[in-house]
Amino acid sequence: MKNKIQSVKGTRDFYPEQMLLRNWLYGNMRTAAQLFGYQEYDGPFIETLELYAAKSGEELVKEQSFVFNDRGGDQVTLRPELTPSLARMIAARPAQLPRPIRWWSFGPFWRYERPQKGRSREFFQWNVDLLGVDSPAADAELAAVAATFFRLIGFSATEIKLQFNNRRLMDDELAALGLSENKKAVFRLIDRRDKMPAEAWDRYAGEAGVRPEQLDRLKTLLANGQLWEKSAECQAFVAAAQALGIGDYLEYDPTVIRGLDYYTGTVLEARDREGEFRAILGGGRYDNLVGEVGGERLPGVGFAMGDVVIGLVAQKYGKTPPLSPSPAQVLVTQFDAATGAEALRLAAELRAAGLRAEWYPEPAKLDRQLKYANATGVRFAALAGPDELAQGEVTLRDLAARTQERLPRAEVAARVRARLGM
Amino acid sequence: MKNKIQSVKGTRDFYPEQMLLRNWLYGNMRTAAQLFGYQEYDGPFIETLELYAAKSGEELVKEQSFVFNDRGGDQVTLRPELTPSLARMIAARPAQLPRPIRWWSFGPFWRYERPQKGRSREFFQWNVDLLGVDSPAADAELAAVAATFFRLIGFSATEIKLQFNNRRLMDDELAALGLSENKKAVFRLIDRRDKMPAEAWDRYAGEAGVRPEQLDRLKTLLANGQLWEKSAECQAFVAAAQALGIGDYLEYDPTVIRGLDYYTGTVLEARDREGEFRAILGGGRYDNLVGEVGGERLPGVGFAMGDVVIGLVAQKYGKTPPLSPSPAQVLVTQFDAATGAEALRLAAELRAAGLRAEWYPEPAKLDRQLKYANATGVRFAALAGPDELAQGEVTLRDLAARTQERLPRAEVAARVRARLGM
Repeated sequence: MKNKIQSVKGTRDFYPEQMLLRNWLYGNMRTAAQLFGYQEYDGPFIETLELYAAKSGEELVKEQSFVFNDRGGDQVTLRPELTPSLARMIAARPAQLPRPIRWWSFGPFWRYERPQKGRSREFFQWNVDLLGVDSPAADAELAAVAATFFRLIGFSATEIKLQFNNRRLMDDELAALGLSENKKAVFRLIDRRDKMPAEAWDRYAGEAGVRPEQLDRLKTLLANGQLWEKSAECQAFVAAAQALGIGDYLEYDPTVIRGLDYYTGTVLEARDREGEFRAILGGGRYDNLVGEVGGERLPGVGFAMGDVVIGLVAQKYGKTPPLSPSPAQVLVTQFDAATGAEALRLAAELRAAGLRAEWYPEPAKLDRQLKYANATGVRFAALAGPDELAQGEVTLRDLAARTQERLPRAEVAARVRARLGM
Repeated sequence: MKNKIQSVKGTRDFYPEQMLLRNWLYGNMRTAAQLFGYQEYDGPFIETLELYAAKSGEELVKEQSFVFNDRGGDQVTLRPELTPSLARMIAARPAQLPRPIRWWSFGPFWRYERPQKGRSREFFQWNVDLLGVDSPAADAELAAVAATFFRLIGFSATEIKLQFNNRRLMDDELAALGLSENKKAVFRLIDRRDKMPAEAWDRYAGEAGVRPEQLDRLKTLLANGQLWEKSAECQAFVAAAQALGIGDYLEYDPTVIRGLDYYTGTVLEARDREGEFRAILGGGRYDNLVGEVGGERLPGVGFAMGDVVIGLVAQKYGKTPPLSPSPAQVLVTQFDAATGAEALRLAAELRAAGLRAEWYPEPAKLDRQLKYANATGVRFAALAGPDELAQGEVTLRDLAARTQERLPRAEVAARVRARLGM
């Protein structure tokens, strides 16, 4: 026997059980986005490096992107995030897209990071963006889409929180501390406030150009849970979120700043209230991303949510639904080779009646066929041996109720539908 | 203004209109696969080159794969096809998977080919496989899944044909011609029979080691539409396809051989009957692919269908459905800034009642707001100005019927649901 070939580190296999979980997330993301009128779209999975160089932030581009030369010698990148593709697509159709633009997407992304809990190198991400309007109420709508998704999968505001902050507010506050000149470095520093040990963070602050007397004032700032009240934008954001009925999910946190360079106003994160996991989502307002890739100036707000962390949180909180791997409702068993063609015909009849009917592909012992139905979660078995066939009948076994009855062949589909409440 | 950044050659942008088309295909693929009890799964998008080196065929691996070194120095490949990942996943779980294994998938693949009509470097592909059983009836089930998909999207057997052949049959026939030793080369030659000019094909035959006296006999063989009747396997395949009710889609073609090395029995292709387009799908039986990647010997049969050719064929034959980009059913308009919060509340109420409600994010002129609803295909507009709000009412405009009525606010959702037949 040959050696088993391994998968690539940081990638995941989606066996049917994992695929059901991914589709459960995807389906609820779709429902949440569509409730607010968002249209599904998708960008390519490979893009030029140039697209990300403009705005994504140095760490993402220089350290975490999968970059390679294709066979024609062009340098391309496996997309590490979607917003630059969104901006490029909108810039390419300046006149044809009615405003506002409400778009959402769910697909694969790649980042070369150390694989660990809550992080893989190949992951799925939900992206939701609203472009063409610059208002705190638009920002609040994005928070409401996220909160609606959490509600749909069973998370109340006592389990998950949406943290917000505002970069313009932080700009003003940092200016007051004399930290405007090294703002980018200080934002990165703030982004790591909860991700590093206290001493290491203090050292990192020094490296970021924060002098000791500024450090104490910065720490006071980052502990001020009432800071948002100084910002008219934040106040309007909170009022709109309350009008949208999701105020209970909100929590102000001055350390929320997000790592991407292109945010300019409101920034958002979601976390489990117990604080066990990484951020579930991140997002915020960006004012000129479309312009940066060659289009007109067009403000926008959006968020992205990976599938890995929310999957872990949902599992920990017991929110994932019971999952049955087979979509089939009926297993058509096979008695012997001579009646094989009739089993195929019966299965085709059930499908024509709208049922999902699986056919057992060998005349194995009936026990083995029924064991298969149990293992894959198929509820009904249809048995048609020579005796049944001669009389135009079928034995229908309900594997959940552990009952069986013999029916005219033409009535089987209707009986299954009735039992399933279809 | 900066220069517009371009997308990578051979990739596609899925604006909402294209995304609706992709989802229309994906949704019908799901329905067809689930009708037969197939479970959805997915593999990683990057795999080791080693995985494909075993069996995919030289051209695919050496000329068409995107291969690169990741930041850790490992050589990886953007998946050019799914079957090797399927085999690897099954080999990794030898005991846990109930047999037979019926799996399907829909996702992105990459091949470095010259972009042209019906071909892009990044494309989507539907994969359907049945493993653990070796019988012509199992092969026929795969043909039935494909035919069911064609029916679901509106293609009759007069528009699309499923062509079949059998490699074991062709092995025997080539042996009778004395062409067994260079079988791989001759299979490649047969695969190009309809893809090259006649003279070029004759020259290619010489290069493949076919002597002139063999060439005439080979041409006679490849023109023999009754050849399948010599094969008991082909006869059983046709009988099972007829029992499954899809016999009218079948057509025997001795030149159908498929390019992948791993096929051993039945091979399948689908084409439009007018012959304008490339093959819509390709597939066949493989007997030892799981063994080749380190698992037990496990026979299987499957097919793959790209999204590009079927999309072109569906468009040409007028099968694509009318597509409305916005999922919203109601647009909640905004009268002025003072009533903005009430508009947000009204939208939230409609969503709580299960409607997809979009909110116009600015107090623009009503004309502009209604123009937006028309442009994106939203049927109803809900107007709540100060006058309506004071009386607890809403003006509901039906943009399709060009009527409007004033209703108590609490009754709006029920009225929209009734009008939409929900």
